[in-house]
Amino acid sequence: MAKWVRFTDGGTTGFGKVDGDRIAVYAGNMFNGAKPTGEVRPLEGAALAAPCDPTKIIALWNNFHGLAAKLNVAEPAEPLYLLKSIGSVAAPDSEVRRPPAYSGKTVYEGELGIVIGKTATNISEDEAASHIFGYTIVNDLTAADILNKDPTFPQWARAKGFDGYGPFGPWIVTDVDPTLANVRTVLNGAERQNYPLSDMIFPPARLVSLLSQDMTLNPGDLIACGTSIGVGSMKEPRNEVEVSIDGIGTLRTVFVQ
Amino acid sequence: MAKWVRFTDGGTTGFGKVDGDRIAVYAGNMFNGAKPTGEVRPLEGAALAAPCDPTKIIALWNNFHGLAAKLNVAEPAEPLYLLKSIGSVAAPDSEVRRPPAYSGKTVYEGELGIVIGKTATNISEDEAASHIFGYTIVNDLTAADILNKDPTFPQWARAKGFDGYGPFGPWIVTDVDPTLANVRTVLNGAERQNYPLSDMIFPPARLVSLLSQDMTLNPGDLIACGTSIGVGSMKEPRNEVEVSIDGIGTLRTVFVQ
Repeated sequence: MAKWVRFTDGGTTGFGKVDGDRIAVYAGNMFNGAKPTGEVRPLEGAALAAPCDPTKIIALWNNFHGLAAKLNVAEPAEPLYLLKSIGSVAAPDSEVRRPPAYSGKTVYEGELGIVIGKTATNISEDEAASHIFGYTIVNDLTAADILNKDPTFPQWARAKGFDGYGPFGPWIVTDVDPTLANVRTVLNGAERQNYPLSDMIFPPARLVSLLSQDMTLNPGDLIACGTSIGVGSMKEPRNEVEVSIDGIGTLRTVFVQ
Repeated sequence: MAKWVRFTDGGTTGFGKVDGDRIAVYAGNMFNGAKPTGEVRPLEGAALAAPCDPTKIIALWNNFHGLAAKLNVAEPAEPLYLLKSIGSVAAPDSEVRRPPAYSGKTVYEGELGIVIGKTATNISEDEAASHIFGYTIVNDLTAADILNKDPTFPQWARAKGFDGYGPFGPWIVTDVDPTLANVRTVLNGAERQNYPLSDMIFPPARLVSLLSQDMTLNPGDLIACGTSIGVGSMKEPRNEVEVSIDGIGTLRTVFVQ
């Protein structure tokens, strides 16, 4: 089990493994043969960046039995997804701002994130595990009033693609089985989501295999596994959202409107 | 007026300006202060790459008065769009293959492409021209049988995101007004589309301004302006599609199924 983080320092981005209260700095390619530099930095006070640079972010819709039942929608036969803009990426502890042109509601969605470690094209479910680098936490922020604003075209990419609307982190944890854990979302101190990852319709290996039939997955690509019950809007001028998954950690985001 | 191309040679990618039957090679940043190296290469026989590396591809739906009227759908009040996967990028003259897991129809869609030259956040329509680097040609290939396969969720990102389903090029032309030209698509020698760009609902400057209210546009980002009348499926095992726009050029793609 390793926790990979990235940090910024004077305009450059570095990465390393979290070791207790310190970061052991590495160099090279996080996904392939990274080597320790010997440098060690304190974790506390480090300016963490999003833990990788995805070439794409695939975000699942309707991937939990519990939510499908609650919304009374059929469970999908195949993964249903959209792409979130790369510009939506935000670092752990970011302050994310509602864009000036949008005055509607923004909702939080706590989710498990899969990070790809090895190029995956048309891989089987058995091969998927070796192509998954690790897991992270995603807050899949959504401009809810945009989604169905136009009756002819659901605006998924727009509603979920605003700058900063895709915080993830705080790190990527390898060699962990997240399907035994719950996703817990706390908004301004009150628990709003607490759902089991064992309830996923398409669990990670199956998801990675099926998505790889559609498009090549690259190292660092992020799959947001979809959310379940408890999504809600952030009503305060300043909102603190913490999404936690046992065995991974806590992603904190401040949303300002 | 300049025509910027990229080419590959022995595993590396270079770029330059087309000058008659030659490429004047440049170095640096295509979008900011590129300098000629003095090297000149023949255009004929050059292995052209897609002319830039977008961080995102925004693809418009329902952006032509003529197509909206024909399909009898309301004209949108705001641009309606999805994101095409970056992995969909294919070079001019590429052979694009239908993925093994999909046995349905694939349609061509000839479109104008806008290439961003300067970071654009919240810019006005007047400012947009200075943020547009130039124009290119897109064949927005679409796995039509996927789009509405699931009645609960239109699968735009999936249907348009397969590897290779986003060829564009052959180059980027600067200082041209494409709104005076037509888009002409020829499938296996027969003209299938011939529509005027003056019929756009959201023309380029307005589009760039409005999209920049949603998300930051980066140099090299590609906006596929949507298609109009004449879209159709490719039925032969091997199909040649040529999309031409006067003043820009011709993008040729071979689609194999």
